Amino acid sequence: MTNTQMRLAARPSPGLPKASDWRIVEEPLPTPGEGEFVVAISHLSVDPAMRGWMNAGASYIEPVEIGAVMRAAAVGTVTGSRHPGFVVGDHVAGAFGVQEHALSDGKGVTKIDPSLAPPPTYLGTLGLSGMTAYFGLLEVGKLRPSDTVLVSGAAGAVGSVAGQIAKIKCCRVIGVAGGEEKCRWLTDELGFDAAIDYKHENVGRALREHAPDGIDLYFDNVGGDILDAALTRLARGARIVICGAISQYNATEGISGPANYLSLLVARASMTGMVVFDHAPRFGEAALELAGWMRDGLLISREDIVEGGVSAFPDALLGLFAGENIGKLVLRIDPD
Amino acid sequence: MTNTQMRLAARPSPGLPKASDWRIVEEPLPTPGEGEFVVAISHLSVDPAMRGWMNAGASYIEPVEIGAVMRAAAVGTVTGSRHPGFVVGDHVAGAFGVQEHALSDGKGVTKIDPSLAPPPTYLGTLGLSGMTAYFGLLEVGKLRPSDTVLVSGAAGAVGSVAGQIAKIKCCRVIGVAGGEEKCRWLTDELGFDAAIDYKHENVGRALREHAPDGIDLYFDNVGGDILDAALTRLARGARIVICGAISQYNATEGISGPANYLSLLVARASMTGMVVFDHAPRFGEAALELAGWMRDGLLISREDIVEGGVSAFPDALLGLFAGENIGKLVLRIDPD
Repeated sequence: MTNTQMRLAARPSPGLPKASDWRIVEEPLPTPGEGEFVVAISHLSVDPAMRGWMNAGASYIEPVEIGAVMRAAAVGTVTGSRHPGFVVGDHVAGAFGVQEHALSDGKGVTKIDPSLAPPPTYLGTLGLSGMTAYFGLLEVGKLRPSDTVLVSGAAGAVGSVAGQIAKIKCCRVIGVAGGEEKCRWLTDELGFDAAIDYKHENVGRALREHAPDGIDLYFDNVGGDILDAALTRLARGARIVICGAISQYNATEGISGPANYLSLLVARASMTGMVVFDHAPRFGEAALELAGWMRDGLLISREDIVEGGVSAFPDALLGLFAGENIGKLVLRIDPD
Repeated sequence: MTNTQMRLAARPSPGLPKASDWRIVEEPLPTPGEGEFVVAISHLSVDPAMRGWMNAGASYIEPVEIGAVMRAAAVGTVTGSRHPGFVVGDHVAGAFGVQEHALSDGKGVTKIDPSLAPPPTYLGTLGLSGMTAYFGLLEVGKLRPSDTVLVSGAAGAVGSVAGQIAKIKCCRVIGVAGGEEKCRWLTDELGFDAAIDYKHENVGRALREHAPDGIDLYFDNVGGDILDAALTRLARGARIVICGAISQYNATEGISGPANYLSLLVARASMTGMVVFDHAPRFGEAALELAGWMRDGLLISREDIVEGGVSAFPDALLGLFAGENIGKLVLRIDPD
């Protein structure tokens, strides 16, 4: 038995990662030393932020080193332990990396309860995606019940939760997503008040229609043209939460900044960046509230699970950037 | 006797205003009706924001209509009155427009005291420029005594006051200005800790040197490359106040947005737009404090007074965009 790993072979040139940026490695199964345990990974989280982790340079987190196992959040089961806090059979979530088996000292690892929600949900709505939506909207964005809320990447892992939280909090919610199927899901299943299909609609015109009094809170996952369109439709005192900018991560000619940023002045608005890890001390509290909303049928968690194991990771990541997933993109690993 | 006025003849094409965008008109002297008074204007304020007022379209204030007298703040003396609140000889400040004599109903007009400060100072440090610096820094920017503060357009009317207020509040202050003379004024006369000459220095490199621990508060008057450089040097939790973007107002190929805006995310920083008029109820309080600092020698007010009257206005405005002034640019009118 071996441990298949996806390691970073090279820093990608600007643009989408290429096959040659990756290297598959077979290693012996890890064995736990004192204070360690081994996890058999069942599912991996595939995230837009991964593209940033592949680049050199200072950011909110260290880059993945060349030659290192690619960083990824994952869930799995403890298969061997010499750690006092974890026993064989424990279900756990942590930054285990793109591999089948991970060695851990328990740092940053949380136990999960598969009877409460399926393990992949702990990567999405009950994981960092849900935390990002929760704290981005409620803390950074200072959501108010009367707000008209715009969410981009609205059919993605973070956006779909953010929009639903805003609905639970009695806001008017407009989602921007790519394609009719995603937009139908937002309005028909998740209860968004409106959805804008940016691939087939003029976003600026649609915003004039759906937010005639302007946007109070914009939760931005995409950047680019959609951010620029939103800037022209801000209500007085609007808040923009910069959660990410998936449209820009693979730009080959530099990031394009929001040309309409002076609308911040006209609207007396603010644009604030967020990193979910800052809110870690309150993750437990947020997970409880999110799980409660799920139990009460107010919050739908959807995972888009692709098969293929570790070797399918590069294509899964490309699929994410192509916008193929609805809900949280998860790669099933399940060795053997 | 006539009243010389500068009227807007045409909306300028993107780029600097041209002579043909203006029309000089001679009108009969206005006579006050019931509830009105007439002001002989002595000095006009020349402001970067004027370029925006010439454009069509929604902004924080109505555009100047084609054919109307160009909007401008001014100071002068009441020469005739049928208004119960104003008598001949009163010294006043208000949005009297680019002309020699203005008719007013008193709305938005304040009395000034020339024995306290010369009239042009009421257009600068004790006028909207000072108010913008004061509220932008203290209210919008939430200045803290330990902050490292960066000010762009630092030798201008707003920037020079903003930097000095930050010094009074015990901050470390770095100014960005164009040219050696301006930079020397900032450090040698105003007490800035450092000045960066953007015309002859690499701003990013200079910021690494002068703000090794990052910028906590950036008061931005210019936008463009300097905003982008500042974004790369933000301290955790930094605040950017968007006061203006003089580098962009005459752009011929569209405004260039801040390509480094994702640094807001890395630094958990915010960028907030401001309009000074929102703080009008507290202008009196701010003017008192600013005047006190001037009296105590803590705050230097400098006006750059150009001659030539109303007909010199178009060139004065071009001079402003060429960065020719140090301190508040004021056009002397003084009819007769």
